[in-house]
Amino acid sequence: MDRADLLNNVRVVLSHTSHPGNIGAAARAMKTMGLSRLVLINPKQFPDPQADAMSAGATDILEQAQVCATLDEALQGCVLVAGMSARVRDISQEVLPPREAVALLTEQAMTQSVALLFGTEMSGLTNEEAARCQVLVRIPCNPDYSSLNLAAAVQLLSYEMRLAAGLGDCGAPALQPAPVEQVERLFEHMESTLVEIGFLNHKHPTKLMHKLRRLYARARLEQEEINILRGILTVTQEYHANKHKVTK
Amino acid sequence: MDRADLLNNVRVVLSHTSHPGNIGAAARAMKTMGLSRLVLINPKQFPDPQADAMSAGATDILEQAQVCATLDEALQGCVLVAGMSARVRDISQEVLPPREAVALLTEQAMTQSVALLFGTEMSGLTNEEAARCQVLVRIPCNPDYSSLNLAAAVQLLSYEMRLAAGLGDCGAPALQPAPVEQVERLFEHMESTLVEIGFLNHKHPTKLMHKLRRLYARARLEQEEINILRGILTVTQEYHANKHKVTK
Repeated sequence: MDRADLLNNVRVVLSHTSHPGNIGAAARAMKTMGLSRLVLINPKQFPDPQADAMSAGATDILEQAQVCATLDEALQGCVLVAGMSARVRDISQEVLPPREAVALLTEQAMTQSVALLFGTEMSGLTNEEAARCQVLVRIPCNPDYSSLNLAAAVQLLSYEMRLAAGLGDCGAPALQPAPVEQVERLFEHMESTLVEIGFLNHKHPTKLMHKLRRLYARARLEQEEINILRGILTVTQEYHANKHKVTK
Repeated sequence: MDRADLLNNVRVVLSHTSHPGNIGAAARAMKTMGLSRLVLINPKQFPDPQADAMSAGATDILEQAQVCATLDEALQGCVLVAGMSARVRDISQEVLPPREAVALLTEQAMTQSVALLFGTEMSGLTNEEAARCQVLVRIPCNPDYSSLNLAAAVQLLSYEMRLAAGLGDCGAPALQPAPVEQVERLFEHMESTLVEIGFLNHKHPTKLMHKLRRLYARARLEQEEINILRGILTVTQEYHANKHKVTK
């Protein structure tokens, strides 16, 4: 199974959302992470121009959104439902942080439909909705200020979902460190140059060379960088030799 | 050092932000995760009522925000600067996903100031700004739609920062599974009740009891749940005994 397909088995269900702008912002957040199945239970206003505006081009998600009258309809066919909960409830299902909850969801989403259920902006899930979830998810946050907005919560969960689906590569080229023998030739060149220009004492170069080794070890030099540094050393040697010739 | 103090060593630097609403939303995102040091380089409009409105009560962050004219001023004293970059650049520093970049930042933030640098909404960091960062951070995202808004990016990085600081506990009460001997007494009670009511054959109860064991093993029963189930079994036995008496 393609990992992007796994994300197609994940429904984001928003219950009784008050502000259409939040629906649009949630769609945008989903799309950035490769989620596409948005389900709305009795949204106050939808479709709405504010939703379109806040979706910033994720209008395809809004157009394909399923609008439902009931929770039953929204969750039909799902085998695992994780509900977002900011409140501490007297009796509740297992409460997990996002990363752990998403690991469970992803495992099921390989073959079946799962849902992330979000309550209203003001009061979150009702007790009846929370009771329908197998797990509740609580985002770790500042105990004195836990006011994440709806789209921000959708963004965080969608991000964790993308990472759990194995799509967390940020596409950056990996560093290509040069082989050790190239690095050694640089240090030889550096040492001889520093002796030539009189910065190093030919008899005791060890300590300073060790410090330079420490610096460049941390940088893990690439071949091109070695070429640049050796180019500078070569020009320094030539400049010094010429200067020496002139002053003689 | 207190872990919340570590977050005080992390500056969120927003460069040349166009929309004051985004500054407010970024402040809100920071505060939910316990970050507080906001630095603004030449914001287009600030302070601004839109920033206050979008901060949803995180106005303390806005009031304490430092407004600077230059990048030098904003980064003064920082020992590590991580810049957000959505673009692939020809030549660039090491590019890391958020989790890895934040691990580096947190390590330094134990003792010194570090910065997360965000560019403008439209075009991100300039090449000059990117060159001033020791690492670039790229959020993994849908290759066909990577349009995270500024506050969403601040939210994700602040969340990863909170987790890396060891403040990722979501405050949920841990499950308290009952000791095995209590679970065994439940199974004995269950088996005898199911035999009494005629659901189980006294001679071959094994297979079904194994299936019930499997179910309840997965649930990891707590003591109170065992009490409830045994209460139901006791009432079932009594009901069956009475019914049996009446029908005789």
